[in-house]
Amino acid sequence: MLLRRRLAAEGIGTGMLVAAVIGSGIMAQRLSPDDVGLQLLENTIATAGALVAIILAFGHVSGAHLNPVVTIVDRIFGGLRSTKEAVGYVIAQIVGGVLGAIIANLMFGLDAVNLSTHVRSGGGIWLGEIVATFGLLMIVFGVATSGRHVMAPFAVAGYITAAYFATSSTSFANPAVTIARTLSDSFAGIAPESAPGFVIAQVVGGAVGALAVFLVFMDSRKAESEDA
Amino acid sequence: MLLRRRLAAEGIGTGMLVAAVIGSGIMAQRLSPDDVGLQLLENTIATAGALVAIILAFGHVSGAHLNPVVTIVDRIFGGLRSTKEAVGYVIAQIVGGVLGAIIANLMFGLDAVNLSTHVRSGGGIWLGEIVATFGLLMIVFGVATSGRHVMAPFAVAGYITAAYFATSSTSFANPAVTIARTLSDSFAGIAPESAPGFVIAQVVGGAVGALAVFLVFMDSRKAESEDA
Amino acid sequence: MLLRRRLAAEGIGTGMLVAAVIGSGIMAQRLSPDDVGLQLLENTIATAGALVAIILAFGHVSGAHLNPVVTIVDRIFGGLRSTKEAVGYVIAQIVGGVLGAIIANLMFGLDAVNLSTHVRSGGGIWLGEIVATFGLLMIVFGVATSGRHVMAPFAVAGYITAAYFATSSTSFANPAVTIARTLSDSFAGIAPESAPGFVIAQVVGGAVGALAVFLVFMDSRKAESEDA
Amino acid sequence: MLLRRRLAAEGIGTGMLVAAVIGSGIMAQRLSPDDVGLQLLENTIATAGALVAIILAFGHVSGAHLNPVVTIVDRIFGGLRSTKEAVGYVIAQIVGGVLGAIIANLMFGLDAVNLSTHVRSGGGIWLGEIVATFGLLMIVFGVATSGRHVMAPFAVAGYITAAYFATSSTSFANPAVTIARTLSDSFAGIAPESAPGFVIAQVVGGAVGALAVFLVFMDSRKAESEDA
Repeated sequence: MLLRRRLAAEGIGTGMLVAAVIGSGIMAQRLSPDDVGLQLLENTIATAGALVAIILAFGHVSGAHLNPVVTIVDRIFGGLRSTKEAVGYVIAQIVGGVLGAIIANLMFGLDAVNLSTHVRSGGGIWLGEIVATFGLLMIVFGVATSGRHVMAPFAVAGYITAAYFATSSTSFANPAVTIARTLSDSFAGIAPESAPGFVIAQVVGGAVGALAVFLVFMDSRKAESEDA
Repeated sequence: MLLRRRLAAEGIGTGMLVAAVIGSGIMAQRLSPDDVGLQLLENTIATAGALVAIILAFGHVSGAHLNPVVTIVDRIFGGLRSTKEAVGYVIAQIVGGVLGAIIANLMFGLDAVNLSTHVRSGGGIWLGEIVATFGLLMIVFGVATSGRHVMAPFAVAGYITAAYFATSSTSFANPAVTIARTLSDSFAGIAPESAPGFVIAQVVGGAVGALAVFLVFMDSRKAESEDA
Repeated sequence: MLLRRRLAAEGIGTGMLVAAVIGSGIMAQRLSPDDVGLQLLENTIATAGALVAIILAFGHVSGAHLNPVVTIVDRIFGGLRSTKEAVGYVIAQIVGGVLGAIIANLMFGLDAVNLSTHVRSGGGIWLGEIVATFGLLMIVFGVATSGRHVMAPFAVAGYITAAYFATSSTSFANPAVTIARTLSDSFAGIAPESAPGFVIAQVVGGAVGALAVFLVFMDSRKAESEDA
Repeated sequence: MLLRRRLAAEGIGTGMLVAAVIGSGIMAQRLSPDDVGLQLLENTIATAGALVAIILAFGHVSGAHLNPVVTIVDRIFGGLRSTKEAVGYVIAQIVGGVLGAIIANLMFGLDAVNLSTHVRSGGGIWLGEIVATFGLLMIVFGVATSGRHVMAPFAVAGYITAAYFATSSTSFANPAVTIARTLSDSFAGIAPESAPGFVIAQVVGGAVGALAVFLVFMDSRKAESEDA
């Protein structure tokens, strides 16, 4: 399929994802002011719904990575044909994500760009982000190697539903989305000065996750006595 | 399949959808008076459940458009055989939607028709409705062109789950449903004077969405060097 | 497959469904005392989860009717081989449902049988029950005639999710479950004196629904000019 | 497939499941302090999402038992090739679960191990745990014998969604997870002195469930007159 179309899919898909994350965060904050857990639940369910829809719609065009960590690991494992393609994917994800954040802000009557003041940092938070990215790779490549690609949207949405609540960082697990979320001073935002720590944690989680993916799902060396 | 049966499917399906939207809005408003976000969450989950069920049940008969924007774009892209059929679909959707609103009102002890006084207007809201309709088309036709029609119910339900919370308009994205929702002065209602603005925004979002659908999912011109 | 095994599947399946409905109602009432809408949301999500699980597990054995209305309509349309079988199904559903209610009561430290005092009656409520049963049949037989039986669990669960919130009766739509729910004086209960009205409404909704199912999904008379 | 890889899948999968259960419990408790039902709803939705993701990702490697009761019953019914394998599975599940609990604690800034003080005991609670484990086996082996393995993740997640709310014990139904949950003094924890009662109830429920699984899903003796 044309690279141009695949890049458009990655860009629009990531933009729709970010608009869903930030937009539902703003809505939740405004409509459920008394319970932050309920806000996160609303944000979670909206994000999960968006992931199911977006991956089902764009997966057959571009693979629906929507995430530089997934793209880079996919390139390492040979899923993309060239590093140039991978770079294109990452740029499309970042540009799409930024546009999605701007659209979300404008829909809710906010300035197109309003930098977040939500500081997110600390050892527990960073560990959360490492764990979140590790787990995401296990799920994405676990399903991919199962041969049941049609189930990937449900696996990713299920995973993010769990990880929003189960990790202390609320599971960004995505550098393009992290960058985009610096642009909205609302529920889902992250202060620009906190973003590098998150991206570093995502890279660490991605590296550990890629290794685990190889060992669990791809290492085809066989033991003589116990192979089925 | 008989056009008569397909029109019945569109009419009953849209009626059930509108009854779910309005009925769950009334129930949510009555039972969760203290938190509007929780009301919207209940309304969202009920709507998503209805979409999964209705599209699974009626999709094989009529395609389960349930939405004039989808029908018109489908006609443009050649999915329906004639404009006469498309007109029939739209009429069935509007009539079914109106009946669904009346039944919802009657179930909850309200007058069969009680016009909404809920004004919904403004630039951010209209942008929300444009974005909502654009996104709906990307999802519907993205899945349709993937060849995985059986996944369409989950994609549409996931999308609407996200869009109810992520767009400032709470994502009507459907002229037939918009008309029907003028007939109930309750949570999901929209004042008749606000309906034209919504429908115009839906048409704009539909036009932009149809163009994007063509470019991302249907444009089959190939580049020599990079086609797979 | 052995009738004995199919009856066991209907009985255990209906019992598990009723235990889920009543048990989650008790839990919701105890843990979320301040918001009845939230109680209903918890009850809804638990019921939907149970339906997905139970129909996936028992559908291949007995069809997972779990509901006398479905069994009777299925018999009318030729899905069951004999009226004797249908009678067996209905008895198994009622017995299983009663046992499920008793187990739910005992798990929560209540008397095995404690008749509900929750009066549910009135024109709007009965209309709700008619609409709920009508809709259930459209969904069940719509999916059945689509040839995608594996999707039935999701269609039914999605439908009930919508109908719990969208109908004024909270959608019992099932005579066996209605009988069982008279046995617990808790959130999901129904006073014995209200049960006959509900069952009558379910029969009316079932009759109208069966007719609509025939016209929309089964009537194979073809028109010369417009058949595809 | 290599046993080594299957054990890694069971260990990592159970660890991710426990981290989701405990982590989302801590998050829910902190963010929704005013409504325990809402806490349980958040915990339930996170757990269900995790189950969908983990079983989709690891099921093709190890079967994604994630639960000693499932492993032992599977061994009895001939799903695993040797008792040695089953023992390996159970050890991997326990070790993985413990590590998942520790990681959850560390992510949220708690001591790596902090024993729960949450006493859970009493006849109703134990009956809840018996029912929960019985039901889990009906669902797991019902789907397994249907030949639709790809639906298992949704069946299990749906079941646990129902059982968290519908059983008085909130449905642990898993000895490895029970042990791991003694290690966190938070929402999802269980006091070590309560764990033996839960495990005994799970064994009882497992035994009754295995018998019912055999009678309903596996007993292939045929009756002459009524077999289809």
